[in-house]
Amino acid sequence: MTDTVLSSATREVVIGFDRPFVIIGERINPTGRKILAAEMSAGDFSRVEADARAQVEAGAQMLDVNAGIPLADEPAILAKAIQLVQSITDVPLSIDSSIVAALEAGLAVYKGKALVNSVTGEEERLESVLPLIKKYGAAVVAISNDETGISEDPDVRFEVAKRIVHRALDHGIPVSDIVVDPLVMPIGAINRAAVQVMRLLHRLKTELKVNTTCGASNISFGLPRRNGINAAFLTMAIGSGMTSAITNPLHPEVVEAVLGADVMMGHDPDCARWIRKFREPPPTGAAGEAGRGRREGGHRRRPTPAV
Amino acid sequence: MTDTVLSSATREVVIGFDRPFVIIGERINPTGRKILAAEMSAGDFSRVEADARAQVEAGAQMLDVNAGIPLADEPAILAKAIQLVQSITDVPLSIDSSIVAALEAGLAVYKGKALVNSVTGEEERLESVLPLIKKYGAAVVAISNDETGISEDPDVRFEVAKRIVHRALDHGIPVSDIVVDPLVMPIGAINRAAVQVMRLLHRLKTELKVNTTCGASNISFGLPRRNGINAAFLTMAIGSGMTSAITNPLHPEVVEAVLGADVMMGHDPDCARWIRKFREPPPTGAAGEAGRGRREGGHRRRPTPAV
Repeated sequence: MTDTVLSSATREVVIGFDRPFVIIGERINPTGRKILAAEMSAGDFSRVEADARAQVEAGAQMLDVNAGIPLADEPAILAKAIQLVQSITDVPLSIDSSIVAALEAGLAVYKGKALVNSVTGEEERLESVLPLIKKYGAAVVAISNDETGISEDPDVRFEVAKRIVHRALDHGIPVSDIVVDPLVMPIGAINRAAVQVMRLLHRLKTELKVNTTCGASNISFGLPRRNGINAAFLTMAIGSGMTSAITNPLHPEVVEAVLGADVMMGHDPDCARWIRKFREPPPTGAAGEAGRGRREGGHRRRPTPAV
Repeated sequence: MTDTVLSSATREVVIGFDRPFVIIGERINPTGRKILAAEMSAGDFSRVEADARAQVEAGAQMLDVNAGIPLADEPAILAKAIQLVQSITDVPLSIDSSIVAALEAGLAVYKGKALVNSVTGEEERLESVLPLIKKYGAAVVAISNDETGISEDPDVRFEVAKRIVHRALDHGIPVSDIVVDPLVMPIGAINRAAVQVMRLLHRLKTELKVNTTCGASNISFGLPRRNGINAAFLTMAIGSGMTSAITNPLHPEVVEAVLGADVMMGHDPDCARWIRKFREPPPTGAAGEAGRGRREGGHRRRPTPAV
């Protein structure tokens, strides 16, 4: 099936139907984070650095980097943030902006093959972003809305996604370099939001054979116990064929849901990753010789064969 | 779509594709519970009573009752347990035994329309259990194995389920009174166990149009953090069309997964049930006048409209 390969200077990550789900950390984004926005504008990237490290440590295989700060020099700030994040982590990045000049500034400094977030089905956006993707040999998130807005009908959204894929092909960009975002709406407002997305994910997998991502946390907007809703959504969406999401790995419920879904999909052979992560430590006073559950280094435990 | 109606003397529960998922509490089962087995054999049903109340309180809409104790008079004990549970709760029951005489003893004392657990595709079992189902007007769990055992091929299991459904029709039992158990194997031993079940659930829903249940906790046998695995399985299985499960509602993760999955499926209108369950209490010292989050009675909170 389709493999989307992203890379940093030294590390490759593959998004694909037969592979573990890819968590793209969402935290480096000043939208709604006033302190972060002020710091980034002032050239202080200490919080960006901390967010990058923490998300990778928590399980993000990629990081989204956004510098959308009103009235700021977004291209310059985004480029700087990307350089900084690439200097301290080796995960591939998603370069996230609504401003095409900022995407290009990010691409110009990026080392490796980036995921560009995003292009829509809007004519002007298509014709400004797709040439950049081709020029830099990047991959791109394709959001399934267009000039008419976001349809509640998943079949209409499918047609938009299909049009973007075909237009990308015209620009010489293969299907494997497109990651479709089916658009996740708050389920507290639209009760059929998840059902719509599941249907769309299924069609995107079986008909367009294209990888997918989404801003998963949107689903729980306005509801209590958001992590429970996010976990339910991620699990069910993975079951429907979603292959990555831009979400928050700092919530343990989210990471646990993804690891559990990977077990369900048969993408965690012998449940080795699950066992490594959740095996209980030996009772206090147990003999250390057997080595079961003993810590190796700071965080990892030694894997054991599954039952 | 297919509705399976179960009842006690005073309450009806419907298992169906367009309805909230039904949790059938698994706890009243002496298998692997030595103390409970000894007590039930000695005529002490205090633990059965406590388990019944606790599971209903925790969110079970039905209860499974099993009295499988080696060398004990299972028909008599099962009948007594059923009478006791029906005297203290109003939820419909699943009468669970591998001994046909015990099923009949349970059916003879049961008030309402019971779910009988279970019939298999084995010839002898079919011809002894199905007449009972017809005689008492009950519904039945149909387990998708036969004389040849449990196939790892979901399509073979589908054929077994289909054969049971057709045989039931021969006995005058409608499809709506059959609830198929696709058989859940431990994923620590069989990595494709969940993928197999998802495929089978999809076929059972779309082709046989039959409701489904399973012993959900089997999936996590032998693994650490079983509730996380159980939650992932239930969520994904509900997404694939499973409509009930015999599981443990005393684990909050299990109930949260089911409630979250119901939200995803659009089976919790306006997310009212989710909000009622998880709404945070107002901060200490907040004015009580608005009434948001105030407790009413012991457990319930006042519902509010969704966002």
